[in-house]
Amino acid sequence: MTHNKSYTLEEIAELLDLKLVGDGQCKILGLGTLGNSSPGQLSFLSNPAYINQLATTKASAVIVDKKFVDACPGNALVSANPYVSFAKASALFALTPQYLSGIHPSACVHESAQLAESVCVGPNAVIEANVSIGANSVIGASCYLGEGATLGTDCQLYNNVTLYHGVIIGDGVIIHAGAVIGADGFGFAFDGEKSVKIHQLGTVVIGNSVEIGAGTTIDRGAIDNTVIEQGVKIDNQVQIGHNCHIGEHTIICGCTAIAGSVKLGKYCVMGGASGAVGHITIADKVQVSAMSLVSQSITEPGIYSSGTGHMKTKDWKRNIVRFQQLDSIAKRLKELEKATGKK
Amino acid sequence: MTHNKSYTLEEIAELLDLKLVGDGQCKILGLGTLGNSSPGQLSFLSNPAYINQLATTKASAVIVDKKFVDACPGNALVSANPYVSFAKASALFALTPQYLSGIHPSACVHESAQLAESVCVGPNAVIEANVSIGANSVIGASCYLGEGATLGTDCQLYNNVTLYHGVIIGDGVIIHAGAVIGADGFGFAFDGEKSVKIHQLGTVVIGNSVEIGAGTTIDRGAIDNTVIEQGVKIDNQVQIGHNCHIGEHTIICGCTAIAGSVKLGKYCVMGGASGAVGHITIADKVQVSAMSLVSQSITEPGIYSSGTGHMKTKDWKRNIVRFQQLDSIAKRLKELEKATGKK
Amino acid sequence: MTHNKSYTLEEIAELLDLKLVGDGQCKILGLGTLGNSSPGQLSFLSNPAYINQLATTKASAVIVDKKFVDACPGNALVSANPYVSFAKASALFALTPQYLSGIHPSACVHESAQLAESVCVGPNAVIEANVSIGANSVIGASCYLGEGATLGTDCQLYNNVTLYHGVIIGDGVIIHAGAVIGADGFGFAFDGEKSVKIHQLGTVVIGNSVEIGAGTTIDRGAIDNTVIEQGVKIDNQVQIGHNCHIGEHTIICGCTAIAGSVKLGKYCVMGGASGAVGHITIADKVQVSAMSLVSQSITEPGIYSSGTGHMKTKDWKRNIVRFQQLDSIAKRLKELEKATGKK
Repeated sequence: MTHNKSYTLEEIAELLDLKLVGDGQCKILGLGTLGNSSPGQLSFLSNPAYINQLATTKASAVIVDKKFVDACPGNALVSANPYVSFAKASALFALTPQYLSGIHPSACVHESAQLAESVCVGPNAVIEANVSIGANSVIGASCYLGEGATLGTDCQLYNNVTLYHGVIIGDGVIIHAGAVIGADGFGFAFDGEKSVKIHQLGTVVIGNSVEIGAGTTIDRGAIDNTVIEQGVKIDNQVQIGHNCHIGEHTIICGCTAIAGSVKLGKYCVMGGASGAVGHITIADKVQVSAMSLVSQSITEPGIYSSGTGHMKTKDWKRNIVRFQQLDSIAKRLKELEKATGKK
Repeated sequence: MTHNKSYTLEEIAELLDLKLVGDGQCKILGLGTLGNSSPGQLSFLSNPAYINQLATTKASAVIVDKKFVDACPGNALVSANPYVSFAKASALFALTPQYLSGIHPSACVHESAQLAESVCVGPNAVIEANVSIGANSVIGASCYLGEGATLGTDCQLYNNVTLYHGVIIGDGVIIHAGAVIGADGFGFAFDGEKSVKIHQLGTVVIGNSVEIGAGTTIDRGAIDNTVIEQGVKIDNQVQIGHNCHIGEHTIICGCTAIAGSVKLGKYCVMGGASGAVGHITIADKVQVSAMSLVSQSITEPGIYSSGTGHMKTKDWKRNIVRFQQLDSIAKRLKELEKATGKK
Repeated sequence: MTHNKSYTLEEIAELLDLKLVGDGQCKILGLGTLGNSSPGQLSFLSNPAYINQLATTKASAVIVDKKFVDACPGNALVSANPYVSFAKASALFALTPQYLSGIHPSACVHESAQLAESVCVGPNAVIEANVSIGANSVIGASCYLGEGATLGTDCQLYNNVTLYHGVIIGDGVIIHAGAVIGADGFGFAFDGEKSVKIHQLGTVVIGNSVEIGAGTTIDRGAIDNTVIEQGVKIDNQVQIGHNCHIGEHTIICGCTAIAGSVKLGKYCVMGGASGAVGHITIADKVQVSAMSLVSQSITEPGIYSSGTGHMKTKDWKRNIVRFQQLDSIAKRLKELEKATGKK
């Protein structure tokens, strides 16, 4: 996967629409962090905490806010948001293999499927009846697109991605290997002896520019649909239950578990391995810490946590015994306060 | 995935064995919730909390307990358990594609495998030596059935399901995309320098009418087998360790992690993202809340929880500092009680 | 999956390099636990807590430490580490199907890929350009090896394993079904309106003798690589974020979530469903309990936990209310201590 992409600094300045300060002919071969760059690499300063690394970086050029240009020992690209500019620079050096368009002869494509001419379908992929795929979309090896699934333009499905029947996906969506979209929601009615399956009659609707990580599962709705709005980014091994509605541009980190019928706002961040119980509403711009459980609706933006923080197990064991006595401790304290006239 | 299924109310009453009150010729085209139905839809009232929606629902008919028939503004189907009747009604409108029977030409089926005549095998599925598959079972695209695996009748394996060698599955089992049954249990012996693999010589045995969610993994036993009894329903991304024994009709919600050698009772409910440490026994009819960890055996039925509930992170930070002082707080309180003659 | 492997006790003693006490001609057909063996089985005593089972075991022979030989009612194999010897014995009875070497005709192997002659490639596997696979490695059905991926000798990839482009795997590595190695790390820069993708330019490098469980995901690095050192054992459904560095011989139990840029030491044990927040360092020989979150760096070896332990939900509800008052409880206690002259 070595690559020979290289750009002059001038070219990069133009591609990213940044002001160049320094040598435009300087050759850039790749990207590096400030502390760990080599000559030929482009770096960035976003977090002011790293400003002391600016003087000693070996990077050939650094993307910086204008107020740090003077502190740059070498070439600079001036950006109002260096981190975003760095993200755009990363696209210039992306190693993702470029697929030729066309349908691999080993793929099984149903005759009723409608594929735009530029669509690429990898080996052993299976495209069922009445599937529709928009221009420039790439379907990886061994993907499965169930009956009537709809995929927009410019999508990339890595290998082994599953779209169940009827799933609807927008434009510019990236889905990583092994993700499963549209499996049955988990719904049963108990008849006193056994669980009777509630067939899941809804589907999943995913907006434009969503990214979905490897092994993530998003269930189809029971009656209405499960909805993921545009710009949502979902990491690996996330589970989203049936009839959830995830607001636009929300970020969901790896291993998060969201139960059914949760309405999660816009611009939220669910930390890694966090969770939400079913049938609650979480306001816009809520952030939930790693491994925290949202156990009831949250109506105000802000940062929320649960859990205890880690400690040495021998100390922890003493403290959890006390946790189980906490209500009694609080009552005894109140008694004492009364007895001593403090309250 | 539009469908044209429709029934008269009379037909539905007969199919579900319910008493009809109202217009038997009323056409039913689908299902809806009480609050969100349109004309032509059938709804249900199960939770009395929603009774006020009964008067205003636009549904053409409602499945209700007999005591609410009079409160129904329109047609009613009378049921002793409206939620179960609704589950049965959902089957009438299920959209799951119906597969033709037959073996897709791209599937690799070993000559020694024994498939009942009505079995359907999807594209690119791989069926190894000595596999046995019962009547009416459907094997999805790209499934892998390892050597000697046994599958009963009327099973549905969605695509990319893996059964390792020797796994034994009962009748009427549904397994969703990407589930892996029978991978090696996680067993190693440490020799002072490195971990020596303990080969996993058992298998997995799964009873009738079990449903298993997308991306779920159930490991094979080390010496004896891992056992999932009949009627168990397992959601997405659940992990069940080697040599677990899950009692019949137990429900395991998404992202739950059950360590090895756990004996989980019958009719239990493990909430979403809950867990159980290894080598414990959990009684029948135990319910465990979302994201709670069962850290020792539970001998009595009941509802169990762990964790702290979420709060604003700035408050939480103060409280977790105190949690780490909790044993000392409790001791100081006792001292004070002694000093003030309260104890 | 019945097998006819059998050995005399003498043969086993020689294969495992153990001293035999008893009848060398005794036929051993399989393995069993002390309490659950039948005649013809070999068992072991490792944990002294089970010594009372030694007298009554039905096993035909037992692997024991020399100090327990006299307590053995029948044949014994004497080992300095009976558990490790038992692990080695398990390899003698392993049921894993033996694959013939060769490339299945349905596999898609790019002409530029370099496969050692003894390599076995299963049905429908896809091997992209410039992939390299070492001697005796087995690629399961429907595996996907992306462009330029490198795999050492003696590896076993079960079916549906994904290696993204450029992933580098050592010798003797086992990867279970559905694992995904090298998907994009979860990196975005927020531009005030939406998340801009940071293309992930690093890869994943995995050392020798690593084992990776079913459904596990290990992300490629953002700029530098994600590194898993030799001898690491990773269970099912583990998530390892971009740029993590996992030290050699560390054990990571099922469903653990490790955020990005974590440096985890050697010989650590991460318990089931545990987690670590991003950008922290965890010392060698740290053990983390099940479902515990490491929320900041750990500098000393030892055992660490978080959480509260489970309790009956009605008691738990009272206690978590108090947890949310804990800081105030602690302050009131201090006041009282002052008021009563205790502090």
